[in-house]
Amino acid sequence: MSEEQDAREQALVEQVLAAFEGTPSPRLKQLVQALVRHLHAFVRETRLTTEEWEAAIGFLTACGHITDDRRQEFILLSDVLGLSMQTIAVNNEARGDATEATVLGPFFTEGAPEIPIGGELPGGAAGEPCWVEGVVTDTAGAPVPGARIEVWEADADGFYDVQYGDGRTAGRACLHSDDQGRFAFWGVTPTPYPIPADGPVGDLLRATGRSPMRASHLHFLVSAEGLRTLVTHIFVRGCAYLGRDSVFGVKESLVKDFVRQEPGTPAPGGRRIEGPWTRVRFDIVLAPEKEGSDAHRPVPDASGDRRRR
Amino acid sequence: MSEEQDAREQALVEQVLAAFEGTPSPRLKQLVQALVRHLHAFVRETRLTTEEWEAAIGFLTACGHITDDRRQEFILLSDVLGLSMQTIAVNNEARGDATEATVLGPFFTEGAPEIPIGGELPGGAAGEPCWVEGVVTDTAGAPVPGARIEVWEADADGFYDVQYGDGRTAGRACLHSDDQGRFAFWGVTPTPYPIPADGPVGDLLRATGRSPMRASHLHFLVSAEGLRTLVTHIFVRGCAYLGRDSVFGVKESLVKDFVRQEPGTPAPGGRRIEGPWTRVRFDIVLAPEKEGSDAHRPVPDASGDRRRR
Repeated sequence: MSEEQDAREQALVEQVLAAFEGTPSPRLKQLVQALVRHLHAFVRETRLTTEEWEAAIGFLTACGHITDDRRQEFILLSDVLGLSMQTIAVNNEARGDATEATVLGPFFTEGAPEIPIGGELPGGAAGEPCWVEGVVTDTAGAPVPGARIEVWEADADGFYDVQYGDGRTAGRACLHSDDQGRFAFWGVTPTPYPIPADGPVGDLLRATGRSPMRASHLHFLVSAEGLRTLVTHIFVRGCAYLGRDSVFGVKESLVKDFVRQEPGTPAPGGRRIEGPWTRVRFDIVLAPEKEGSDAHRPVPDASGDRRRR
Repeated sequence: MSEEQDAREQALVEQVLAAFEGTPSPRLKQLVQALVRHLHAFVRETRLTTEEWEAAIGFLTACGHITDDRRQEFILLSDVLGLSMQTIAVNNEARGDATEATVLGPFFTEGAPEIPIGGELPGGAAGEPCWVEGVVTDTAGAPVPGARIEVWEADADGFYDVQYGDGRTAGRACLHSDDQGRFAFWGVTPTPYPIPADGPVGDLLRATGRSPMRASHLHFLVSAEGLRTLVTHIFVRGCAYLGRDSVFGVKESLVKDFVRQEPGTPAPGGRRIEGPWTRVRFDIVLAPEKEGSDAHRPVPDASGDRRRR
């Protein structure tokens, strides 16, 4: 590239940055100027062609048009580019051995039914029974009594209750740790399922040779007074999609042994189970809440609930 | 930031890049991996909060929902971030004294009426008369005869004919340079007008203290055998918006003196003009067409109304 050409391109970047110099909010100014720098660097580095620019406009337009109250293609796009997980990483700085965070996903709902320790996720979501137990501690190792533990998961067919369409609640519950920080409940053994791949993001996955599948997982949202709220999953060791989870949610520290139990094995709480079942241990370590930090509590979106991905 | 935190964030970037490693098209792989690097760098550098990420998703969703067959908010967004102009800069490398390119804009249409040299833009778009003349040469200074020159502009109220809604053609014409490369026509003196500011991009401009106005301009699309097609504007020196054109289209080399003529001044072609008028000279230098380069010709958009040459 000639010096003249380089100077022209750089001058344009400076001109655009200067246009945002008068932004009243310092944070908005920082964000928009950083975005300008990175996007212009992308265009200059790749020597983006006019046709590619038009394809990008067309892609974003298609994402906009498929997005409605039940389908959020821009979140899907953020997910498959790893940007959702990077935002979560940035907002959950590593703190000692604190349990790692992962994506909230679109299927969290407020007001899941309360169950006692050892209880079952109500509604009888289909699937192989899974006993989940563990203890909640802080980073100093002290048990956290009374931690609020919200749990939700897909059924054996890969569907969450909000996808059933009949208003039923299933596969989700809320419980509290006991005075020694312990918790336990019956869920179902997680199975893999695909993110919606019938839109432009699905086209992108196909064009880039990627799978739409999410690795098998079980969601947790854990909160306790004075500690950082944790949004995470646990994943099933051995799942074929662990290394290619479509939203990059898998962290090695979150992969757990779901230990297979033969039919007839005596189950916790004296439960009688005809077929096979699994059990898994998940000990949860909550980080201290940092003064003035970005609270990680999920924020409801415009429609007041999370949308399907 | 701790080393552990930095390592986690960097590992995620590497993981996402690796996920795209199997992309069959080398160019798509290059583009998507570069996009991942730049967007993750943006999130990490700004420590984007969860709320800001949600606001970004909401902004893109709103852009998608206001976009229809007549309104293209993603192009507007690209325009106000200077990305449209940067793409044009990248695809029109500086070549000697070749005339600089600028945005095509949304108002070009095929099949503008042919006029002779010295003719008038038909349809009588309202505005002060403006005599435009010049010569088309190549970068060696040789005249280019028979160059096709398409010209279009807004009327004195800032509207293009396609915005009238009555199907009328006005303010646009097509002519050819003569055997010495010369051209001339009657247009109207350009006036400033705003880009549509009633959507999310307008909100962004307001939040960042920017004007939606475009500097006064007149569009050219010039093509000739064996030479790089030029898409450009000329701008009116003295226009209040030259330094803050909302789409960054202004280049100093494209700012011209529109010289004011008193009422009664004899006009070219013996035309009788009651009120004041202006005249401007615009000499056009076309770059050689580079073998194997990205042709700068406009590509038809989704509705098919851009001209392919």
